[in-house]
Amino acid sequence: MLSTHPADLGSVDKAAFAACIAACLECSQSCTACADACLSEDMVSELTLCIRTNLDCADVCAATATILSRHTGSNETTLRAIVEACRAACASCAAECEKHADMHEHCRICAEACRRCEQACAELLASL
Amino acid sequence: MLSTHPADLGSVDKAAFAACIAACLECSQSCTACADACLSEDMVSELTLCIRTNLDCADVCAATATILSRHTGSNETTLRAIVEACRAACASCAAECEKHADMHEHCRICAEACRRCEQACAELLASL
Amino acid sequence: MLSTHPADLGSVDKAAFAACIAACLECSQSCTACADACLSEDMVSELTLCIRTNLDCADVCAATATILSRHTGSNETTLRAIVEACRAACASCAAECEKHADMHEHCRICAEACRRCEQACAELLASL
Amino acid sequence: MLSTHPADLGSVDKAAFAACIAACLECSQSCTACADACLSEDMVSELTLCIRTNLDCADVCAATATILSRHTGSNETTLRAIVEACRAACASCAAECEKHADMHEHCRICAEACRRCEQACAELLASL
Repeated sequence: MLSTHPADLGSVDKAAFAACIAACLECSQSCTACADACLSEDMVSELTLCIRTNLDCADVCAATATILSRHTGSNETTLRAIVEACRAACASCAAECEKHADMHEHCRICAEACRRCEQACAELLASL
Repeated sequence: MLSTHPADLGSVDKAAFAACIAACLECSQSCTACADACLSEDMVSELTLCIRTNLDCADVCAATATILSRHTGSNETTLRAIVEACRAACASCAAECEKHADMHEHCRICAEACRRCEQACAELLASL
Repeated sequence: MLSTHPADLGSVDKAAFAACIAACLECSQSCTACADACLSEDMVSELTLCIRTNLDCADVCAATATILSRHTGSNETTLRAIVEACRAACASCAAECEKHADMHEHCRICAEACRRCEQACAELLASL
Repeated sequence: MLSTHPADLGSVDKAAFAACIAACLECSQSCTACADACLSEDMVSELTLCIRTNLDCADVCAATATILSRHTGSNETTLRAIVEACRAACASCAAECEKHADMHEHCRICAEACRRCEQACAELLASL
C-alpha cells in the first residue's frame, strides 16, 4: 500500500515502515493468542504476569501498526514516542515469555515474535 | 499459534480461523492506509465517504482479529455476531472502494483486501 | 461533540447515540479492569471464562464506541451489525460476571456496566 | 473499579490513575468525533493534517486507557513509555486543533479535551 500513496513521502524509509507494520501485526496477534493459551494452562496462577504483559504488548503493537499505516511524514514526535513505547513493550513481553519458553511452546513462539518486533522498531527509529 | 493451544478446541476449524485472522489483519491495515492515501488526494472532498467506510472497516477488522485470536470455543454468540459485523463492514468498504478503483490504485488494492476478508468471514461462519 | 457536527445528521437520535457511546466507553473500561482484577484473585483458575468474556466485551465495546463517534448517518448496515455484536457481547459478559457477583465486587460492578451497555445498544437499535 | 482490585497496588496513586483513564477515554472519543466533523467541513482539504493528528491521538489515547485499566504495579517501563507517547500525541493534537478553534467549534472542544489529557498524563508521570 505504501507505494500507492499519492503524497511525496520524502526521505521516509518505506521498507523500514513496512517491515515494522508487519512485525507489529504479527506480534499483536501472537501476544493475544499467547495470553489466551496461558489462560488454558493448568498452572495459570503462575502465568498471570505473562498474561498481563502479553495483553499490554498486544495493545501497544496494534496501536503502533495503525499509526505507522497512517503516518505520512508528519508528526514525527508522536510517531517516535509510540514506536519507543512499542519497543519497550516488546522487550518486556519477550523477557517474560522467554522464562516460560521451555515449558510452553506458545510462549516460545510469542517471545520470538516480540524479539522480531523489538528489532523492527529499533531499525525504524534508527532510520528516522 | 493455534496449534500450540493447550485446550482441546473441539470441532473448531482451525484453518478457517487462521485464514480469517490473517485476512482481518491485512484488511485492517489496508483500510487504514487507504484512508490516509485518500486524505492526500487532491479530490479529498469527493472521497470522504470512502475515508469513513475505510476507518469503520479497519476498526471492525482489528477487533475481529483480536477476538478470533482469543477464542477457544466458548461464547459462540459473540463470535458469530462480530464476524457477521466484519463481513458487513468489508462488503460496504469493498463496494465503496471499487467505485474509485479505476482512479486510485490504493482503492483498488484495498477493495481486493476487503473482498478477501468478506469471503474469509463467510467461510468461517459456514464452518461454525 | 455531536451537536457541533457540520453535517445535517437527519433523523439520527443524537441522545441515543451519545448515551450508547458513553455506555460503551464505561463498559469497555470496566471489562478491562475486571479481567485484570480476576487475574489477581486466588481462584483465578475458576475465572478464566470470565476473563475471556471480559476481554471480548472490552474489544467489541471499544470498537463500537469509535464507530458510533464517527458515524454520521452513512452505512447503516455496518452500524447496526456492530451494535448488535456489542449487545450480544454485553449480554454474555453480564451473565458471566453475575455468577461471581456475590463473591467479587469487581464482577458485580462490571455486570452492571454490561447491563447498562446492553440496554443502551437495544435503545439505539430501536431508534434506527 | 480500582478500589475493588484484590491485589495490593502498593504506592500507586489511584486518583492519578483514575483521572488519567477518564481523560484518555474522553480525549479518544473527542478526537474520533472531531476527525469525522472535519471530514464534513467544506474546507476539508485544509483540515487533512488535523484529521490525521486526531486519528493518531484517538488511537494512542484508547491504548493508554486500556493499559492503565489493566496496570497493577507491574511493568513500569511500558506504562511510562505509553503515557509519554499519549502526552506527546495530545500535545500535538491540541496544538493542531487550536489553529482551527476560532472557526470550528468541534476543534475548540477537542483541543480542550487534548489539553486536559496531556495534563492528566503529566500528573500521572509525576506520581510514578
